Amino acid sequence: MELGMVGLGRMGANMAERLVRGGHTVVGFDPGAAAREQAAARGIGAAASLAELVAALPAPRTLWLMVPAGAVDATLAELRPLLAAGDTVVDGGNSNYKDTVRRAGELLAHDLHYVDSGTSGGVWGLQEGYSLMIGGEEAAVERLRPIFETLAPAAERGWGRVGPSGAGHFTKMIHNGIEYGMMQAYAEGFAILGRKAEFGLDLHQIAQIWRHGSVVRSWLLDLSADALGKNPDLQGIAPYVEDSGEGRWTVAEAIDLDVSAPVITASLMERLRSREKDSFADKLLAAMRNEFGGHAIRKE
Amino acid sequence: MELGMVGLGRMGANMAERLVRGGHTVVGFDPGAAAREQAAARGIGAAASLAELVAALPAPRTLWLMVPAGAVDATLAELRPLLAAGDTVVDGGNSNYKDTVRRAGELLAHDLHYVDSGTSGGVWGLQEGYSLMIGGEEAAVERLRPIFETLAPAAERGWGRVGPSGAGHFTKMIHNGIEYGMMQAYAEGFAILGRKAEFGLDLHQIAQIWRHGSVVRSWLLDLSADALGKNPDLQGIAPYVEDSGEGRWTVAEAIDLDVSAPVITASLMERLRSREKDSFADKLLAAMRNEFGGHAIRKE
Amino acid sequence: MELGMVGLGRMGANMAERLVRGGHTVVGFDPGAAAREQAAARGIGAAASLAELVAALPAPRTLWLMVPAGAVDATLAELRPLLAAGDTVVDGGNSNYKDTVRRAGELLAHDLHYVDSGTSGGVWGLQEGYSLMIGGEEAAVERLRPIFETLAPAAERGWGRVGPSGAGHFTKMIHNGIEYGMMQAYAEGFAILGRKAEFGLDLHQIAQIWRHGSVVRSWLLDLSADALGKNPDLQGIAPYVEDSGEGRWTVAEAIDLDVSAPVITASLMERLRSREKDSFADKLLAAMRNEFGGHAIRKE
Amino acid sequence: MELGMVGLGRMGANMAERLVRGGHTVVGFDPGAAAREQAAARGIGAAASLAELVAALPAPRTLWLMVPAGAVDATLAELRPLLAAGDTVVDGGNSNYKDTVRRAGELLAHDLHYVDSGTSGGVWGLQEGYSLMIGGEEAAVERLRPIFETLAPAAERGWGRVGPSGAGHFTKMIHNGIEYGMMQAYAEGFAILGRKAEFGLDLHQIAQIWRHGSVVRSWLLDLSADALGKNPDLQGIAPYVEDSGEGRWTVAEAIDLDVSAPVITASLMERLRSREKDSFADKLLAAMRNEFGGHAIRKE
Repeated sequence: MELGMVGLGRMGANMAERLVRGGHTVVGFDPGAAAREQAAARGIGAAASLAELVAALPAPRTLWLMVPAGAVDATLAELRPLLAAGDTVVDGGNSNYKDTVRRAGELLAHDLHYVDSGTSGGVWGLQEGYSLMIGGEEAAVERLRPIFETLAPAAERGWGRVGPSGAGHFTKMIHNGIEYGMMQAYAEGFAILGRKAEFGLDLHQIAQIWRHGSVVRSWLLDLSADALGKNPDLQGIAPYVEDSGEGRWTVAEAIDLDVSAPVITASLMERLRSREKDSFADKLLAAMRNEFGGHAIRKE
Repeated sequence: MELGMVGLGRMGANMAERLVRGGHTVVGFDPGAAAREQAAARGIGAAASLAELVAALPAPRTLWLMVPAGAVDATLAELRPLLAAGDTVVDGGNSNYKDTVRRAGELLAHDLHYVDSGTSGGVWGLQEGYSLMIGGEEAAVERLRPIFETLAPAAERGWGRVGPSGAGHFTKMIHNGIEYGMMQAYAEGFAILGRKAEFGLDLHQIAQIWRHGSVVRSWLLDLSADALGKNPDLQGIAPYVEDSGEGRWTVAEAIDLDVSAPVITASLMERLRSREKDSFADKLLAAMRNEFGGHAIRKE
Repeated sequence: MELGMVGLGRMGANMAERLVRGGHTVVGFDPGAAAREQAAARGIGAAASLAELVAALPAPRTLWLMVPAGAVDATLAELRPLLAAGDTVVDGGNSNYKDTVRRAGELLAHDLHYVDSGTSGGVWGLQEGYSLMIGGEEAAVERLRPIFETLAPAAERGWGRVGPSGAGHFTKMIHNGIEYGMMQAYAEGFAILGRKAEFGLDLHQIAQIWRHGSVVRSWLLDLSADALGKNPDLQGIAPYVEDSGEGRWTVAEAIDLDVSAPVITASLMERLRSREKDSFADKLLAAMRNEFGGHAIRKE
Repeated sequence: MELGMVGLGRMGANMAERLVRGGHTVVGFDPGAAAREQAAARGIGAAASLAELVAALPAPRTLWLMVPAGAVDATLAELRPLLAAGDTVVDGGNSNYKDTVRRAGELLAHDLHYVDSGTSGGVWGLQEGYSLMIGGEEAAVERLRPIFETLAPAAERGWGRVGPSGAGHFTKMIHNGIEYGMMQAYAEGFAILGRKAEFGLDLHQIAQIWRHGSVVRSWLLDLSADALGKNPDLQGIAPYVEDSGEGRWTVAEAIDLDVSAPVITASLMERLRSREKDSFADKLLAAMRNEFGGHAIRKE
């Protein structure tokens, strides 16, 4: 198929390359000239503007957005007038599903299809394929089947339409919430292992053992083994953990739906905590202990 | 009554003084000469040794231990041969209740009574009285009624025999577990208030408002108000929170009894976390994010 | 002063009565005739409509809303056209502070003052006074000083202007988040005490002991003691815990502000969990254990 | 090699069969006649007593214990006098590592080797191999290399000596703690997905999509997909989750080592909570809300 890729950052360029390798024709656009040049070197056609990109595609057109969540509305505002009835826009990024539901309605009013593809796989997706959780009208999704079959790890596996517009991003959001919990579980476990000085454990070795036959084997464990192999003591890495939004949304959704989710929530809290270098809460705890018990306070 | 106070640290000396003010005769012993001298200046008789202390008391003797949990067994080993059948030893410190049950059995074999008094009130107890949770044989506890009535905030309030040997320390342990959870709840709430820059809230003022008529009024809030009044930004206080053991024991007990205690447990975890300046778990999370998503790692 | 009370439910009627007892003149309105009659019997003037209520008040008028959070916008829509420049509306309920900021702006456009009063104290406020956290313009708040001084436990204590519009409801929201954490801490502690069968502890007795001199003494403990005194085993009470919204908002706010709040969050999760009678998560855990270990599954 | 398997339950019989398939000679013993007969039918020699088992093995003997943690000391007490200097006992079960350290010392005093093998893989290990975390003297472990190479998924992968006696069981304990956290993360995520009625999500389909290319792919996800495929609504499964001890020990160890482990801890708490059908804590919360706010209590 022919597809226009909007956004040629790490994810967008990799996905475009995987499609090109799979026999599709991809024209890409990115506001950055460097990104366009690098894409061209990887066999991805590079348009100089959204208008040029749209003009290069046959009707009905397929545009795949791989832009930051905060840039989707602006991109759609620019793109919409360039499109014609029957065209399809896919949002493959990490948009909030509520925005997706709204946007699908807005585009539908112009006879445009809007498909959301929650996309997992990270930098490894180029080689291993992406896991795609797709929301949107059945016919619109079905028309893009060749795209999904190429992006996914295998034609029939690793992708699927999970529901109407928004369902794909909703599912990806929960996926990331689970990811937070799993990561935190491993992180705590390895931290305990590493603290047990009397056994002198080799965390990389243990990760390698667990990768084969154990109940906790997983792709995140494979990656942890890689990280611990390269840098056993994780020297030089700050204990500072970003979050990209989906974990927050998962917690909010759990609460909205009255579902108790203590572990996903605790994982998010730990990420927030990792970024507090001078916790007011902990200072107040120390101050309270001093007030009632005369316990000494550490000076900063 | 006449009572021997073993251990004239902050708590022991204060309790002895409250007893003296209440008309009791107290002889104290402490291995530190300075502590003995300070006690003498406060009207507390000071013996130069445990033997001298025991010799100064009329039979049946009452010895109150106010020593660190780790020193109780050694103190009892030295004290036991000096005592006579019918004497009573009270452990007023924060011993693990399992040790208390064991010690009571050991002393009983020598016809000695052992009473555990979980003691709350901290440095304020001298003026306001102590809350006393008492375990031991009924008759042994009853004989000490005048002591408890003086130490407690009022003759009939703030103290009671809650059960057999160990029950007092068990109850005090749970008291401290609750304390951890309450403290953490306040600390989190004030931290959120303080972070809301747009409202420019005065945390001391809010604590004062809450002290009167609100659902969250409490003594810990009174102390928080004091701390925030003296040092509104808690400047110079390190975000480092010690724990004294009872919180850990409470978590262990909850698990042994199959009782879910998520808040007390989370409070303990936060104290441990406050002391991690270079969390390995957080470093591993950052490393994992880099592995799968190419997310940048902060350098230390 | 003269004041119109909109909403004569439990909270509104009690507050009106406390104002009447304090020498103020209160006219009330409630859509329910029974509520109006009961209010009249308590010395509160009862208007048959909002229009009649407004007409009964001298300019500049003071209207105090004590209606459910979901009814505030509708009430304001009806009330606004009846008011004149310089009048003041107080929202004394549990509105979300973001709504309050919006409403204050809307009313200001009509030269009306909007004051938010976060109100704590529950059914005990009539006798003991209410703790009032107030947001709004300084002059508008100052004009109402006689009202606040009467509602609060004492003229100078238990109330204060904490900041601009919204700051009062924000502070009350955090107050309730803290309340969740404190309640959960007590609940867990008493649950552990009650499970320790070998000591046969009397939870009411322990609550009474702790009320005097202990570190965990508080008003919530006083209430727990009352509840345990009336019904020691809490027989007939379902383990089902509602939440009224502020806890959810507190968690959302903590996350928005990047403040880790593990205990308040865990408290909310436990309330959600208390309402799950057939947890899907727990079923899936049981199913997973069966899959990997052949562990038996309990049948429902 | 020749090996004696003590305990022919599900795990022991499967491991014995895998060894037989791999060319080893295995004699087994189990106190249950049925277990012995079933083992014999699977090519495993069956001894009628421990003495007969020991007599059937050439020196230096290798005995592998696959018995419940609570039966290890009794088994060793019976086995020890039957063994000769230079024999080796392997504990392949889920013993507490502290017991293992003690037992290794006791056997060493009799010139017997003691090796601990933390064993993961569950009922799938027969076909897929077991992940083995091994503790003990290097020479003793090395002598058993052919056994480990057969039990593990591949000769060089999935097993390793991680440290001295106890280190294997310690590592397995932490493995299980991580397992709790991962399972809870999935359980929460699927519970939220299932509650989102508007999207009508098919949880089995989503699990299948995630198995390929996603960040959360893992063996536990494979098993979850199986479970959801067989029983999409998990009908008939009680929301009751057992725990087998290692999770508790992991929490205790984290606390002993001063490592914050909020997610593993919360996972354990949720298992305890799943077994509370009439939570006293939740009843007390409901009672407190009634006390301060007059909020209605649900009757049981």
